[in-house]
Amino acid sequence: MKTNGILRHLHALDRDCCLLEKTAAVLQWDQETNLPSLGVKERADQLALIEGLAHERAADPRIGQLLADLGSGSEHPSGDESLPPAERDFCRVVRRRYDRAVKLPPGFAADAARAASLSQAAWVDARRRNDFAAFVPHLGAMVGFARKRAEYWGFTGGAVYDGLLDAHEPGIAAEEIARLFGPLRERLSALLKRICAKTASCPETAGDRDFPALSYDTEQQARYSRELMESLGFDFRRGRLDTSAHPFTTTLGFDDVRITTHYKKDNLLSAVFSTIHESGHAFYEMDINPELRETCLAEGVSMGIHESQSRLWENVFGRSRAFWEYQFPRLKALFPGQLGSVTTDVFYRAVNRAGPSLIRIEADELSYSLHIILRFELERRLFSGDLEVEDLPRAWRSGMKDLLGIEPETDAEGVLQDVHWSMGSFGYFPSYALGNLYGLQFLKKLRQDLPGYEGDIARGVFSAIRQWLRENIYTWGRRLDPADLLFKVTGEKLSAAPFLEYIETKYTELYGL
Amino acid sequence: MKTNGILRHLHALDRDCCLLEKTAAVLQWDQETNLPSLGVKERADQLALIEGLAHERAADPRIGQLLADLGSGSEHPSGDESLPPAERDFCRVVRRRYDRAVKLPPGFAADAARAASLSQAAWVDARRRNDFAAFVPHLGAMVGFARKRAEYWGFTGGAVYDGLLDAHEPGIAAEEIARLFGPLRERLSALLKRICAKTASCPETAGDRDFPALSYDTEQQARYSRELMESLGFDFRRGRLDTSAHPFTTTLGFDDVRITTHYKKDNLLSAVFSTIHESGHAFYEMDINPELRETCLAEGVSMGIHESQSRLWENVFGRSRAFWEYQFPRLKALFPGQLGSVTTDVFYRAVNRAGPSLIRIEADELSYSLHIILRFELERRLFSGDLEVEDLPRAWRSGMKDLLGIEPETDAEGVLQDVHWSMGSFGYFPSYALGNLYGLQFLKKLRQDLPGYEGDIARGVFSAIRQWLRENIYTWGRRLDPADLLFKVTGEKLSAAPFLEYIETKYTELYGL
Repeated sequence: MKTNGILRHLHALDRDCCLLEKTAAVLQWDQETNLPSLGVKERADQLALIEGLAHERAADPRIGQLLADLGSGSEHPSGDESLPPAERDFCRVVRRRYDRAVKLPPGFAADAARAASLSQAAWVDARRRNDFAAFVPHLGAMVGFARKRAEYWGFTGGAVYDGLLDAHEPGIAAEEIARLFGPLRERLSALLKRICAKTASCPETAGDRDFPALSYDTEQQARYSRELMESLGFDFRRGRLDTSAHPFTTTLGFDDVRITTHYKKDNLLSAVFSTIHESGHAFYEMDINPELRETCLAEGVSMGIHESQSRLWENVFGRSRAFWEYQFPRLKALFPGQLGSVTTDVFYRAVNRAGPSLIRIEADELSYSLHIILRFELERRLFSGDLEVEDLPRAWRSGMKDLLGIEPETDAEGVLQDVHWSMGSFGYFPSYALGNLYGLQFLKKLRQDLPGYEGDIARGVFSAIRQWLRENIYTWGRRLDPADLLFKVTGEKLSAAPFLEYIETKYTELYGL
Repeated sequence: MKTNGILRHLHALDRDCCLLEKTAAVLQWDQETNLPSLGVKERADQLALIEGLAHERAADPRIGQLLADLGSGSEHPSGDESLPPAERDFCRVVRRRYDRAVKLPPGFAADAARAASLSQAAWVDARRRNDFAAFVPHLGAMVGFARKRAEYWGFTGGAVYDGLLDAHEPGIAAEEIARLFGPLRERLSALLKRICAKTASCPETAGDRDFPALSYDTEQQARYSRELMESLGFDFRRGRLDTSAHPFTTTLGFDDVRITTHYKKDNLLSAVFSTIHESGHAFYEMDINPELRETCLAEGVSMGIHESQSRLWENVFGRSRAFWEYQFPRLKALFPGQLGSVTTDVFYRAVNRAGPSLIRIEADELSYSLHIILRFELERRLFSGDLEVEDLPRAWRSGMKDLLGIEPETDAEGVLQDVHWSMGSFGYFPSYALGNLYGLQFLKKLRQDLPGYEGDIARGVFSAIRQWLRENIYTWGRRLDPADLLFKVTGEKLSAAPFLEYIETKYTELYGL
């Protein structure tokens, strides 16, 4: 077979794989947004079947043969140097998926998917009833599947957690994350303590509001979320906004990227910032080069790069003074009774109020990374064998005390708050803090190329920013590995310095430290 | 292998088939209710892949071998007489699906599914723009796929349409339907003419309202739809209500049966009766014996029996005086401004107003079957080669003139009004009128067993009626073929007499003929 024929065949096999993964994404999205309560069991069976088929396709021996025919092996995954660059990236990513897939025994992917689907439903219930004990068997099963998966991949003993991290952030290990998180832990804690000393309001921030805690009609909130997305440039012909217990973004097709948010009557900011955060994820997926459509290259390259985008939009843009100069009058118009007498400056300070808090997704930009460090350290101990699932609530409380100086009263506000572990997504959490680091490194370059970007934001204009992000980051999809993408854009290695400098500057100014 | 082992293996193969079909149903439901407009193309690819896999599984040679091992062949599809009765029914239905599946060439199911998905999206657009010409290529392709499918199954020449009918109503042929529709055509037309003469309002009924045409808030309508479903006993833990362009019911899992309706500001009755109609379909699917869960027996046996239930609920129960004695005060409470001065009797007459109309799903109980006869006759001519797709609009108008005495001004109100053909569902339409016949035959028996059923309805109590329907009809799923089910319940063959008697009695009384 000629090279073109081989590539065509390999693309056809990859395409079916991708379509099956997107079908699974439809089943999962529907489970989170629409599924009737008693439908959970059969949905788990449907997901198990589809995930099992996707795994079978990914491990199809024909793929191994076609890759070998193209010169792709474990030493030179990208294949023959005469291949076009995009095809070499394609070979590298297919090789990686194939090598991982063939190491899992038949049935493993299906069993893991079924268990994850049931576990997630059990988590929703356990969190609602604040019943960690009821969730323990599911969580134990999820840890077991994750450990086995990493072991099948060849990460054994102390390296198991590295295998899980690598699945979310290719090429990174726990040791390097610990090295990056060290200065974060230290300098963010120190900054938080200075703010607490200055405001004398820590550890409790509830009474310390800059504008009254009122009730915000959830339908008006939904209307604002939609308007906000439109003003950021979200194309509703290629996506949707829905509601779910835990906000998320998922790609159901190249032209079908869906985000969710949640509305709380007593918390206007929760929906607003979830919406911006998830829109950031969506923009990344929506702006991948259309030539990569229906291939394994047509997705974000890692969760860290993904979070760099969601957090860039949510925090660096979304919590900036410029952003609210344009948006606040619009928000005010929808809630005149509640916000009529609030100034833009007061609102800007309110959305940047820092202090220790219990819930990660409601945390401020400063303390957020400390929530992540807690989860990273717990996951590392879980997979080193130093911590048992049953002991998580206690370890959680002690970690919170250590990092943030406060403890949750209930597990619902503690160890049960996040969806990730219920789905077996261990090694995902560090991505959020890595995203903060990547994001600020990217921003340094963006600011050089677009010195007027803050003026754009203040005028509600995002086209130049979107274009810069598309051309430099989004368009690549999976073509460049995270470290290569970062280097291509910034000429740098991953570093905590720009993020820490940004945070320290912003909060020193905000609190007059 | 022992018999039990063979059955276990066959059930496992069937289960994957069913799970794939349900997965396709999720993709389709989502396409109708949620899919962003540009997502259509990739959704078609996803559906093609899943339908292709479902077909591959249905035609798995192991199924043929296992069936043979159980003594099931084309002569004795139910297999060995020593098998338990439910397993014999299982063998018969798997044999039928297998024999059909192996006759289709590889790729056919996938290609047909992809084309249907694109065609349906094109239909939505063509109907919106009243542009039949734009829909012609898709409709032509759908006719082509349907013809080919029937031919592969062995229905050739003049029998092609019989093959399409058999897929929706096993065991029935066009000739028998024509025989049953003969007296319907004649006696319903005559009755309609008598009503027109009496009211002097035909052919136009628009100005002949019994209560003023006002505006009905669609959110209040949605609230009433949900209340109505709850009062009929719809279990929302096992199903949902959503909105779509064309109301439908679909089963996404044994405990996940979803209906849709549509809300029109100026037409309260449209949503109400669509909701009751689709609830009838849902009750059938929801009340199948749970022991049949995740097998091919766990669905309604034919579209005719299905429509007998939707139309029994919509018309015989839902348009009865007893029904509105209970429901009207509730409806009134939601729309006091619009309905405050309307009496139950006036409302009862309004929901039973008969007259020629253009839109099938808005048609009254009397003239409805005439709309079906039009479609049956057109389909029969399409597949006999007597009518070309391009000539449908003209044939439609002339058929309407002949059967109902009126003609549509636009194709959107004519040949483009229904979703069925756009999905390649030819041979489906007769099911609606057959459903009227089955339904009234079932009712005769129900009335004997539950003489007080109308009193129940007037008190808003549906438990005894649901139980009777479940025990006599729903519980069987596909275990009994339509004619066998009808005979088991009523001791009769399919007949138009009870339906015609019911309609003539009802409308003679209503219009004082």
